[in-house]
Amino acid sequence: MATITERTYIKDLKAQEGQEVLIKGWVDVRRDQGKLIFLDFRDKSGVVQGVILPNAKEAHEVGARLRPEWVVSVHGKVNKRPEKNVQAEKLNGDIELEILGIEVLSEAKELPFEKDTELNLDTYLDHLPLTLRTDRAKDIFTMQATLVDEYRKSLQKQDFTEFQAPALVGGDAEGGAAAFKVDYYYDKTAFLATSPQFYKQIMVGVFEKAFTIAKIFRGEKHATSRHLSELTQMDFEMGFINDHLDIMAVLENVIRDVVNAAASKHADIFTRFNVPVPQLAEKFPILTLLEAQEIIEKEFGGKAVGEQDLEPEHERQICEWALKEKGCDFVFITHFPTKKRAFYTYADGKDPSLSKSFDLLFRGLEINSGSQRIHNYDELVEKMKSRGLDPEKFSFYLQAFKYGMPPHGGSSTGLERLTARMLNLANVKEASDFPRDLNRIDTLLSK
Amino acid sequence: MATITERTYIKDLKAQEGQEVLIKGWVDVRRDQGKLIFLDFRDKSGVVQGVILPNAKEAHEVGARLRPEWVVSVHGKVNKRPEKNVQAEKLNGDIELEILGIEVLSEAKELPFEKDTELNLDTYLDHLPLTLRTDRAKDIFTMQATLVDEYRKSLQKQDFTEFQAPALVGGDAEGGAAAFKVDYYYDKTAFLATSPQFYKQIMVGVFEKAFTIAKIFRGEKHATSRHLSELTQMDFEMGFINDHLDIMAVLENVIRDVVNAAASKHADIFTRFNVPVPQLAEKFPILTLLEAQEIIEKEFGGKAVGEQDLEPEHERQICEWALKEKGCDFVFITHFPTKKRAFYTYADGKDPSLSKSFDLLFRGLEINSGSQRIHNYDELVEKMKSRGLDPEKFSFYLQAFKYGMPPHGGSSTGLERLTARMLNLANVKEASDFPRDLNRIDTLLSK
Repeated sequence: MATITERTYIKDLKAQEGQEVLIKGWVDVRRDQGKLIFLDFRDKSGVVQGVILPNAKEAHEVGARLRPEWVVSVHGKVNKRPEKNVQAEKLNGDIELEILGIEVLSEAKELPFEKDTELNLDTYLDHLPLTLRTDRAKDIFTMQATLVDEYRKSLQKQDFTEFQAPALVGGDAEGGAAAFKVDYYYDKTAFLATSPQFYKQIMVGVFEKAFTIAKIFRGEKHATSRHLSELTQMDFEMGFINDHLDIMAVLENVIRDVVNAAASKHADIFTRFNVPVPQLAEKFPILTLLEAQEIIEKEFGGKAVGEQDLEPEHERQICEWALKEKGCDFVFITHFPTKKRAFYTYADGKDPSLSKSFDLLFRGLEINSGSQRIHNYDELVEKMKSRGLDPEKFSFYLQAFKYGMPPHGGSSTGLERLTARMLNLANVKEASDFPRDLNRIDTLLSK
Repeated sequence: MATITERTYIKDLKAQEGQEVLIKGWVDVRRDQGKLIFLDFRDKSGVVQGVILPNAKEAHEVGARLRPEWVVSVHGKVNKRPEKNVQAEKLNGDIELEILGIEVLSEAKELPFEKDTELNLDTYLDHLPLTLRTDRAKDIFTMQATLVDEYRKSLQKQDFTEFQAPALVGGDAEGGAAAFKVDYYYDKTAFLATSPQFYKQIMVGVFEKAFTIAKIFRGEKHATSRHLSELTQMDFEMGFINDHLDIMAVLENVIRDVVNAAASKHADIFTRFNVPVPQLAEKFPILTLLEAQEIIEKEFGGKAVGEQDLEPEHERQICEWALKEKGCDFVFITHFPTKKRAFYTYADGKDPSLSKSFDLLFRGLEINSGSQRIHNYDELVEKMKSRGLDPEKFSFYLQAFKYGMPPHGGSSTGLERLTARMLNLANVKEASDFPRDLNRIDTLLSK
């Protein structure tokens, strides 16, 4: 047997038709047919069907032991498939590998279920080291890798500088979200960041335009399909703006770049998930909260005007409207009540009860939130006091304003929510590779 | 006065010679010279000198109030400097801005010290929202943004897929490093990750080649110039390797790409820090621990052979040797004692007391650590037991091995250490924008 040492990726087999090759990967499926053994092999690049003919004795002996998820190195010859067996739409659907030799690199125990079986969420999560290997999970996290990378690239193109925001913070600074407590040194208490907000504002003083991909942690006792206890936030902040519309323009560029890249790189994934590529209007529609509420009442009935935020059901309705009427899967909602937003949110001079804030909705879900921020030191201190916050506790952050901050603002996009909506996943937990929630960190906590 | 609304970045002023422009930025310095007021303005792109002539009355009135770090919008005319005042080596050294109008966007309180003054580390850290604006800090974090970005790009080019590793974990898994405890829901205890190790190994089962940029947290009571309590780790892991040399080859590619990009983008920063661009030999030197120790004894005297690791002083010496003898600022040390490395480290078949592990040293400091890992389930379980670890506690992680793992390995690079050595910073805290340590989270904890 010829000694081939260079590995061929499965996606490149077609080009080796008639040649002997070495592939490495996992056994996906074994099917015995009389004296023939059929084996599907999987590597990072794809799947190919192999066959062990009765005369390949040694291979036959090894092949008869193989089970799903065994890891193997396979020596074989790339053959055309008989015409009647060609599956034209599949990768390697017109070739098969005649197996000449198999080396077992790693055995696997019996699987608790067939790898690509549809599972309930808890079973799926209990077995992530196995279930992340499913086609579905690989697609989700291949998509996610593109989303985060294109987000960064778009901001770099728009002249933003990346920085690393801290996860350990000294206090539950915004006073809103429930922050997890950390036992720090010498019996001191630290907290896990609920947002990189203060740090990205500080970085506006340094780079004017700054972004960070930061883990954030939310200790609220939510058990919904939209919440995670640890999530990946894609945040940017920029100085010398006129108002929130400048932030929204940058964000719209980012979303456009991200969606276009996803569409061009992953048409196959959209097809497999039976989800259309998001529609992008020439300009994303922008509605004030009030305008949105009026449309919701008019188009869908019920009561919306006067509420301080959009209910989940209203978010779905206004997105439905935006897609139908404006041909856009994204819609901006602006001018949320000032008192309902964080203390640093900039009020609109025309009506200070409303703020220069916005949410970006995507297919029925808020995936991004942003605003212009207060940049005047005295005003910010006053605002803290009026909210019952002690400026002394914010002395570090406040230095940025004490020493001159330009008009600025920014926004935050949740990577998992963006991923989930991109592929119409029912639960955002499916868009987190290792989701943490009320009851689970890898394994169920009650165990 | 003409109304110009479009902002010109300061680095682009030269191209506007003879024109009226609008710039926005911070006041860097004010100098009064008789009836002339000189002002240096700074924006994200650079610095320019402005002058208010006595006849510009309104500008003069505003200009007389300006202090460092006030934020302004300035309307002016770009003039050639008189020949005798030209500073050829400086950006905008041959032009100055004749100031026609100034709008104050934000005032600043009096600074506690001149912005670019040399400070002791604690004073620097107490005032980060101001001191991060210094030329020195901007250079460090501009460099760092390039390092992390080029690290990712190099791995993407080498066919690795990015994933998000969790920061919240269920246990102090490796049993080695001191992990911070987190008060999780319902009085449960979680921990902060000391490494993304287990998760990147799991991802080898999914993508074969995976990387993550992950925050990790170390609760050891170190107070050295090399340790941080929160740091940014750049981790990759890959399957179907022959041994640790395959990992080292990928890492060497990464380092080469990162250094070359830093050199080409930031020649100016290396110059300002008076640090040469790192030297890269055609192949990075590789020494076993024993070989390194023998060289240290021979070249520098003292006792090294027989020790289980390199002392900080020995790391400096072997790097000095590698630069002098091999023309390389990087040197690999391999084959550390198996018992001194993590339980999942692969022993060398030729001598199982030594492991297929390596460190990468850079200018006297370990910046990276890696190895081949055990991929056989039963062997891994046995290894845990022999170290007094309870396999039951690792049941989630162990699934990856139960269901077939290829031979694999990977490595971890500390972003802050890499940054610090790149610019010869005395303390790694200078390479973390918001460093956390024994005594500090933004402010001193004892306060």
